[in-house]
Amino acid sequence: MNKQLLLMKRPVEFPSEDTWAFTEEQTPEPREGQLLIRQHLISLDPAMRGWINASRSYIEAVELGDVMRAGTVGQVVKAVNHPKFKEGDMLSGWGGVQQFTLTDGKGFHKINTELADPKVHMSTLGMPGMTAYFGILEVGKIKSGNTVVVSGAAGAVGSVVGQIAKIKGCRVVGIAGGEEKCHYLKEDLGFDEVIDYKSGNLRKDLKKACPEGIDVYFDNVGGYTLDTVLTRINRQARIVICGAISQYNEKAIQGPTNYLSLLVNRATMEGMVVFDYAKRYPEAVVQLAQWMKEGKLKSREDVYVGIEHFYETFCRLFSGEKIGKLILDIKQ
Amino acid sequence: MNKQLLLMKRPVEFPSEDTWAFTEEQTPEPREGQLLIRQHLISLDPAMRGWINASRSYIEAVELGDVMRAGTVGQVVKAVNHPKFKEGDMLSGWGGVQQFTLTDGKGFHKINTELADPKVHMSTLGMPGMTAYFGILEVGKIKSGNTVVVSGAAGAVGSVVGQIAKIKGCRVVGIAGGEEKCHYLKEDLGFDEVIDYKSGNLRKDLKKACPEGIDVYFDNVGGYTLDTVLTRINRQARIVICGAISQYNEKAIQGPTNYLSLLVNRATMEGMVVFDYAKRYPEAVVQLAQWMKEGKLKSREDVYVGIEHFYETFCRLFSGEKIGKLILDIKQ
Repeated sequence: MNKQLLLMKRPVEFPSEDTWAFTEEQTPEPREGQLLIRQHLISLDPAMRGWINASRSYIEAVELGDVMRAGTVGQVVKAVNHPKFKEGDMLSGWGGVQQFTLTDGKGFHKINTELADPKVHMSTLGMPGMTAYFGILEVGKIKSGNTVVVSGAAGAVGSVVGQIAKIKGCRVVGIAGGEEKCHYLKEDLGFDEVIDYKSGNLRKDLKKACPEGIDVYFDNVGGYTLDTVLTRINRQARIVICGAISQYNEKAIQGPTNYLSLLVNRATMEGMVVFDYAKRYPEAVVQLAQWMKEGKLKSREDVYVGIEHFYETFCRLFSGEKIGKLILDIKQ
Repeated sequence: MNKQLLLMKRPVEFPSEDTWAFTEEQTPEPREGQLLIRQHLISLDPAMRGWINASRSYIEAVELGDVMRAGTVGQVVKAVNHPKFKEGDMLSGWGGVQQFTLTDGKGFHKINTELADPKVHMSTLGMPGMTAYFGILEVGKIKSGNTVVVSGAAGAVGSVVGQIAKIKGCRVVGIAGGEEKCHYLKEDLGFDEVIDYKSGNLRKDLKKACPEGIDVYFDNVGGYTLDTVLTRINRQARIVICGAISQYNEKAIQGPTNYLSLLVNRATMEGMVVFDYAKRYPEAVVQLAQWMKEGKLKSREDVYVGIEHFYETFCRLFSGEKIGKLILDIKQ
């Protein structure tokens, strides 16, 4: 049997458990040119919150009654004359929250398990790593000596953003919630400064951590953090809008009231969607893997076990009870 | 005697008449290397509202008790061995709201009255023209075929922005308040579409006027207009933040709640300050004057008479009771 998670409701604020429901189907049989993938890992991403809204954003909404969209890593258990993949291949792609995925292989690619563990292919060598790499280099355009601030700094994207900025010679300040995360960023990842936003002194702490202002800000959270950072940006500063996790479950989005700081400082705020760089993923994977090999870049995954624990694991994205990439291991 | 307007208060919301006070001093005598300029024209600009706030923005605040800052055009009535200017020269610069300005000439430049009337040197060939030119070309980076929206479209900056965009082959939509302005934009300046925001259907009107979305938005007003435009932008759209006249007199600035449209659309919001292009003003003046000569670009000034009418004329900036460049003629 194939256990699947279906989208049942479109929540306005925070999704409740009955937003989704499990179902089981007979495990399907691949036909000519098809694959059956047994999924091992399900990726949990803040973007999931947006995908269940009715409105199309940068990607189609998940339809009610459909399997919940998710990035996956799994193994081909059956292939019927597939031109590209064979049984045993480990594939990354959009497999959805289910144990088995039947597909023609479109949107899937083979991962190199000798290069790194499958989990790492879902984190630093996967979508979060790609987002960090192209976001901070192509949109943030960091230069050596810049003061770079990143929010959601202990997350899958933020932690890689900060480490890349360190590698490129920047002074890196991370904003995260709680002592454990701050300790991790400073002691394990070598961030220059960390700010625990939960301590409630963001404005003051930011001033102290960035005495010479902020050149590049990589925003994963939006809301009050973005608004406060805007008061400390330098001339020609660049703000990368990657996400706004503080706002995804709000009925009304909080806009940055200090946006006129962009005018005063001739600064830029630019949005990014990682898919635009799809053709260049291989180049990023090579570079990120190289940095990992050299010990300059650390990947961290927070893995929970069992497809039935999807909802409580999903909640960790927003409660912040996780460090690094949040993954559900459903291999059993 | 030299009548001068001094800044007396720092208003939080809309400035009242006693924000400023007139005084008179003995008309000063220029000494070695100095000039005395008799001012003819005083420029009224929305930016004045920002200059009287306590906080430094892109320029120092006007100090309490100081002559109110203003752009001016006037004639040198006395020059004592000045290396650059002589009696009779018409000079543009920061003369302030006063009848006579004593100066060493720094920050002033001679205008060519054969090229255009002094009023035009204060509008389309002056700061508003420079702002429009560099803002829409260098920051907006318009390309032929783009749909360009400009707010404050009947203002000194907006009207030139729209006309430059037309010259460059764009489809131009102006947002302005009231029938007279809309008629002027469409019939006199040849805008493709105009929207009267006072009719209260901005969202619907914008959708109708921009069926293929918005590629470039030049924002002079902020607030609800900016927020609404954000819902209609295209992929890779560019938003030029030039001003936010709807917000200057508000205690709390309204941030753009739809700013995540920047993310979804990989769009950019960038602030500009015209002073950054000072070295290139001459190139813009030549080009704008050429377009005027060819009949492609029209300049319009709204002139009121008498320094004693400063306050009521200033109020027109925010009530919208003016078209084009607002000028106070104090030549008498």
